[in-house]
Amino acid sequence: MSSVKPSIPKGTRDFSPAVLAKRNYLKAQLISAFENFGFQPIETPSFERSETLLGKYGDEGDRLIFSILNSGDKVKNADLKAFEKGELAKFSHSLSQKALRYDLTVPFARHVAQYQNDIQFPFRRYQMQNVWRADRPQHGRFQEFLQCDADVVGERSLWQEVEGVLLYDLVFSKLKLKEVKIHLNHRKILAGIAQCIGAESKLIDFTVALDKLSKIGIDGVVNELQSKGFSSNIIKRLKPFLSLDGDFETQLSSVANALENIEIAQEGIEELKFIHNQLNKNPLNVISLTFDVTLARGLNYYTGIILEVMPPKGIKMGSIGGGGRYDKLTDFFGLKNTSGFGVSFGFDRIFLVLEELNLFPDTLNNKTQVLFLNFGDESASFCFNQLTKLRVQDFQCELYPNPVKFKKQLNYADQKSIPYVVILGSEELQKEIFIVKNMTSGSQSEHPISEMLQVVKQLD
Amino acid sequence: MSSVKPSIPKGTRDFSPAVLAKRNYLKAQLISAFENFGFQPIETPSFERSETLLGKYGDEGDRLIFSILNSGDKVKNADLKAFEKGELAKFSHSLSQKALRYDLTVPFARHVAQYQNDIQFPFRRYQMQNVWRADRPQHGRFQEFLQCDADVVGERSLWQEVEGVLLYDLVFSKLKLKEVKIHLNHRKILAGIAQCIGAESKLIDFTVALDKLSKIGIDGVVNELQSKGFSSNIIKRLKPFLSLDGDFETQLSSVANALENIEIAQEGIEELKFIHNQLNKNPLNVISLTFDVTLARGLNYYTGIILEVMPPKGIKMGSIGGGGRYDKLTDFFGLKNTSGFGVSFGFDRIFLVLEELNLFPDTLNNKTQVLFLNFGDESASFCFNQLTKLRVQDFQCELYPNPVKFKKQLNYADQKSIPYVVILGSEELQKEIFIVKNMTSGSQSEHPISEMLQVVKQLD
Repeated sequence: MSSVKPSIPKGTRDFSPAVLAKRNYLKAQLISAFENFGFQPIETPSFERSETLLGKYGDEGDRLIFSILNSGDKVKNADLKAFEKGELAKFSHSLSQKALRYDLTVPFARHVAQYQNDIQFPFRRYQMQNVWRADRPQHGRFQEFLQCDADVVGERSLWQEVEGVLLYDLVFSKLKLKEVKIHLNHRKILAGIAQCIGAESKLIDFTVALDKLSKIGIDGVVNELQSKGFSSNIIKRLKPFLSLDGDFETQLSSVANALENIEIAQEGIEELKFIHNQLNKNPLNVISLTFDVTLARGLNYYTGIILEVMPPKGIKMGSIGGGGRYDKLTDFFGLKNTSGFGVSFGFDRIFLVLEELNLFPDTLNNKTQVLFLNFGDESASFCFNQLTKLRVQDFQCELYPNPVKFKKQLNYADQKSIPYVVILGSEELQKEIFIVKNMTSGSQSEHPISEMLQVVKQLD
Repeated sequence: MSSVKPSIPKGTRDFSPAVLAKRNYLKAQLISAFENFGFQPIETPSFERSETLLGKYGDEGDRLIFSILNSGDKVKNADLKAFEKGELAKFSHSLSQKALRYDLTVPFARHVAQYQNDIQFPFRRYQMQNVWRADRPQHGRFQEFLQCDADVVGERSLWQEVEGVLLYDLVFSKLKLKEVKIHLNHRKILAGIAQCIGAESKLIDFTVALDKLSKIGIDGVVNELQSKGFSSNIIKRLKPFLSLDGDFETQLSSVANALENIEIAQEGIEELKFIHNQLNKNPLNVISLTFDVTLARGLNYYTGIILEVMPPKGIKMGSIGGGGRYDKLTDFFGLKNTSGFGVSFGFDRIFLVLEELNLFPDTLNNKTQVLFLNFGDESASFCFNQLTKLRVQDFQCELYPNPVKFKKQLNYADQKSIPYVVILGSEELQKEIFIVKNMTSGSQSEHPISEMLQVVKQLD
């Protein structure tokens, strides 16, 4: 048998039991919070028809979608002419009809449109599944990663935005993660600013540039706007918006004043006021709110409130979550008038924050409470009988599989952090006793063999 | 915006909240049993390097592996010469370096070899992840489905086989699924039979034909053996083995006698005796054992005990699980002498059996306990404040997002099986009371508004 050097593709990960214990803890906290809010789970297939995904994420997104090669003989439909002309994207499309999920939002919109007659609206769903992106692998960026989204579609209500913020607050409270910041803005305020400064016709270029403010600074944004052909006059009128001062209400008032004649902006401001007002009545435990008029978010499908979640100060990391209101996403799939609001949790980044702040509970990994050592068939057979009864009662225990050296068996218990071992060697068998060893303290206690089940059960 | 008809690829599935509630229940039972047995979870990437997977599942398996098309410009390495010669498999390989997981066993073997220095052996792992196969979709056969495996590697001990059977017994007990049958056999007994009848040189053809006995009957097996060139003399000597009578021990004795001079067979028989003997001492709750000398199992990597799990009589379905001992699987990845034993649960088939026998609990789907109806901002704001406090205490509740018609809101509660609604209309607000409506009985009760939190909490 020729052997292959064992390795995995770049940008993918294996998860060991120790890491998975933490990931599963984080998942469980998210699920518990989602369900307290009445969200229900759905799952969609890992791959979708290519046309479901292509064209939804912009050109850059399309390039990052993983395609599945047609199976067997179907590759004979390869478009060689396209290949010869150097039209590689077209060539690729001729070889593939399916693609791996790129995010959860587009498959969700497809799902809602497809089952619109079976779904009870407003539909509150959460979804935790992997997505795949053909991104260049680098530190903290993977080709396969978990997304966690909660959305409600089918009814437009600002209570949903209020709930979105409270959902973050509940999740981070459960995780004991404090001093999280949520930046809020509204697409209609951005549209109002564009109108005010005379940049309406280039709204997308404008928001794309603005979205980079935290990364490239005011000068960077100004440079980008200049390169996109924005006049110096426009840029001059924009600048005051980039350096607002004061708390949430003060900044919101400043913007309201600056945009007082612009109707669309006032709509956005009224919505933000309602949300901020309701959140004042339902105090947040670990989150503070910032009105951030420069927040734009890259995705074009947002139409109302947008938000982004930032980790506590001192953690060098971008946003750990984000979301917003979208009014037309299901239109792609023929379902109109179905407004939605959704929030997303950056699972891997939240994981790293919890690691850095040492917020994972210590006791997650090992579940086995007792290891029965193995001293040959007679003892093992007796112990195995006890262990079988214990497992049926949801008590987690193991028998070491072979009568190898005492030290090796103890080492296994030690490495697996098993807190107790049961010793029933030939000497103990003769005396009709057994020994319980506490692996943490090293202390031992003797008990009559007839009481093994009761004694071990109390070790839990 | 041009719209796309929403649909998913053939052979894939969307899971609604109602179905997922059942799937998650089944998963939770499996995980609980795995962990009682000391198994720990791992996860491997959805795609592996192609060379990790190819050649491990036979030619048929290779054809069913989904390949991922190289991204972007990398498709320019297409092997057009192979295409022109009609060597489509070679052409496909030139377009792809990664492939979707086909099962959990090969990635597990790769994982064990790759992390051999970090893993504490014997390594007891369970894994529940999707696998993908480019099979022709048909009723009950999917291109994406969940596999659930528990394996222990790194030490050879027959206690592991005994545990495997008991693990099935615990899982099916938890699921209240009775009268499950496990068929047991041993690869060494099959080798012994082949030796006895003079078919040693064609052991694989022999076991492949035998494996089809339950599907095609004795005559079918005989035909297949004839077509593979087995002599009528060999077939004549085989026939007695195909129609053994009696209970487990009787059949095992018959085979032991028939193969008394064949050492390899006696090894297998001794092992089966040990296992059967130990399982007599640890009574099974819902499983009965059959010694089935015709059981072969398709996969070639098994070297010892093999087993297959059959649903209760009357359910028209193949095996709902299976497993066995393998001694050389990690050799593929350069790790020798690492025996393993594993069992697998056929998640989708078990799901169908539970459905057919109506064994899913009734109360799985809805988690929301209370819906607060919406009668406009004043009432909603008060209710929302209560609801926020309840959610923090892990009480699951919702506010209807808009003050739409009473009937529509009640219908939502009804459709979502929410057991209670809270009514706080303008009349109630004035009287400083609220009403709780029991959606099952239709009965209503009035309470002072100041006691809303306590009253609602007790509805859980």
